[in-house]
Amino acid sequence: MIYADYNGSAPICEDVKNYLIKRLNSNGPYSNPNAIHFMGGKVLMTMEKARSECARILGAMAHQIFFNSGSSEGISQVFHSLLSDGVTKGKDIMIISAIEHSAVVNAGLYFEKKGYKYLIPKTLENGLVDIDDLEKLLKQNLEKVAIVSIMAANNETGVIQPYKEIALLCQKYHAPYFSDTTQLVGKGPFNFQECMADYAVMSGHKIGALTGTGILMAKDPSTLKSLIFGGGQEKGLRGGTQNYIGNETLAVALTHMQNNISKLEDIRLKRLEFEAKLKKEFPAIVILGEKASRLASTTFVSYPKIHGQGVQIELESQNIFVTTSSACSDNEPVTSKVLKAMNVSDDIGRGAIRISLGPCSNPESYDNIFQGMCNAYKKLSKIKSF
Amino acid sequence: MIYADYNGSAPICEDVKNYLIKRLNSNGPYSNPNAIHFMGGKVLMTMEKARSECARILGAMAHQIFFNSGSSEGISQVFHSLLSDGVTKGKDIMIISAIEHSAVVNAGLYFEKKGYKYLIPKTLENGLVDIDDLEKLLKQNLEKVAIVSIMAANNETGVIQPYKEIALLCQKYHAPYFSDTTQLVGKGPFNFQECMADYAVMSGHKIGALTGTGILMAKDPSTLKSLIFGGGQEKGLRGGTQNYIGNETLAVALTHMQNNISKLEDIRLKRLEFEAKLKKEFPAIVILGEKASRLASTTFVSYPKIHGQGVQIELESQNIFVTTSSACSDNEPVTSKVLKAMNVSDDIGRGAIRISLGPCSNPESYDNIFQGMCNAYKKLSKIKSF
Repeated sequence: MIYADYNGSAPICEDVKNYLIKRLNSNGPYSNPNAIHFMGGKVLMTMEKARSECARILGAMAHQIFFNSGSSEGISQVFHSLLSDGVTKGKDIMIISAIEHSAVVNAGLYFEKKGYKYLIPKTLENGLVDIDDLEKLLKQNLEKVAIVSIMAANNETGVIQPYKEIALLCQKYHAPYFSDTTQLVGKGPFNFQECMADYAVMSGHKIGALTGTGILMAKDPSTLKSLIFGGGQEKGLRGGTQNYIGNETLAVALTHMQNNISKLEDIRLKRLEFEAKLKKEFPAIVILGEKASRLASTTFVSYPKIHGQGVQIELESQNIFVTTSSACSDNEPVTSKVLKAMNVSDDIGRGAIRISLGPCSNPESYDNIFQGMCNAYKKLSKIKSF
Repeated sequence: MIYADYNGSAPICEDVKNYLIKRLNSNGPYSNPNAIHFMGGKVLMTMEKARSECARILGAMAHQIFFNSGSSEGISQVFHSLLSDGVTKGKDIMIISAIEHSAVVNAGLYFEKKGYKYLIPKTLENGLVDIDDLEKLLKQNLEKVAIVSIMAANNETGVIQPYKEIALLCQKYHAPYFSDTTQLVGKGPFNFQECMADYAVMSGHKIGALTGTGILMAKDPSTLKSLIFGGGQEKGLRGGTQNYIGNETLAVALTHMQNNISKLEDIRLKRLEFEAKLKKEFPAIVILGEKASRLASTTFVSYPKIHGQGVQIELESQNIFVTTSSACSDNEPVTSKVLKAMNVSDDIGRGAIRISLGPCSNPESYDNIFQGMCNAYKKLSKIKSF
């Protein structure tokens, strides 16, 4: 079996699995981390140690990271912190790229209804946001931009945006910059301080931690407002008894990720070989975002006029699990909004499948996937899909 | 060691522990539950089975329950659904009891700043909300009440409100009723449909499920708005890749709870015996909320002028873990707001400690706690605490 949907969700990583089994078997510390007694203190201490480890690996200060339930919550909190139901201070502009995750899009649409203007910088055909157009928008709306939201790495194409350059532009024009780094963390080098974004997010389930965990990073936490009310947890910025077991697994998974990051280079090389073989065998195929810098482990590929869902099903019959786009829009057999923004035609867009591995995947998997795709394409090219 | 802080947080229950160890050892299903492939479908199916089981045990329909990260999130979502940053439709009244959890209080304070009126019905000295006063407020503000928030069972005293009677009153006066049932679920009989509230919440960590899990129940889900934006998960009402492992443990923990609910009667009888012995030994002590119906497993007791934190520390030295009030306000050696609402004097209020067990605690624990408290009170009564 080959699991090639790491951009959708990763399996629990080995270190997290071992950590949890040991924790459960030894009846590890439990208690409300906010309780005054020794047991609460022990849980709190373990969790704060996990926070420090997460912060160190993410390149942030411990006070800049907030444990939550995942990126969608982090995204929602950033939007609710920077925007409000009543538009204020003349800052009524949102600049949101066309390739964002639906959590960002839906946040933008929510605040558009509240009176904000939703501006979209152009996307180039290679999948990169047009920096010149972004600068034009920033310049035209000086001191009026409430948020710039441009992701670091795209979930479908794996294209990595020049997020540091974007951060510097936003600084120049005094606009708060939120970078959705969900797909970058764990699949490429990432350092919060160096990336220079004002806000960033990550989800535990994308890196092999327990599901339902995540981290919001904020350069200046005083700019955050709580989305979830509570009893003062996470310095008053995220209510609710902390998910201490989940948070511990974040530290374990991030450490595991750091220890295995060098494996990504093997994956990257093998992926390039795989893509080259695929293009040689099927000259008609298109690798989306090929000309841009991409995540080591993501290939978004289309055989024009062969339906992506057909390929996905053929691969599944060979025990290879891929998706057609992001999990959220997977059930719609249409060209994804990301590809539309890249001006990809429907012939190509509807044929796309996403192959995404993780740092600990066996690079040789690409050989099996190649074989599987040859079988699928040869079979399906005899049928007119659409 | 005796853990007597179940109202703060429960340990992972045995069934959940076994379930998780088995799941981890067998590399149980993983994937994004929204993915189109077989693996995603398997995760989704397992999670939906868990939803049905949770719904059945909670007395709700499957479409009425929404998985989230815990009660604080549920509380925040209810408030954000019923109220908005701009007061609308002349519905500008919040009726919130004086004994609510700080998540509710902080939600109320947030919306008070947005223009809502924060009305507090009286609390009786026995810890019950004054129903006559509540009815007066409802009558005076007919068609203007945006939310009534009165918890089902209090986290400190364990006093159980007549939540069904409150629900009927709210229906009579057309006011949406939210009942914070966090402390009731798992510690007493609970059925969402029968309780007749419009909204209710629960936290997994209070019943032995994984931390960071919870459920929001809504009689009419169409009245909910999403707090966390996302890709359409949980019928568009709660964004973010679902915490499927956590959600599975909710079903396991609720089933475990249901299988063990009869043990609460043994706990209740033993608790009453414990309280009677304590009063006989120390006639000065006061059991807070004694005259009202209380949770089977909660005793909130004070020896006037003996500081609660002193007693807590003495008990801790005997390996008995209790708290002085709720975890969130534990570090403040003052009379809690719940006790102030009950008109409890500082002499008594500052002396309070909370002893809370769970359905699977050994009832004999009360004998050890009794002995521990005798030791503590005898020692501390020689010292003037305050």
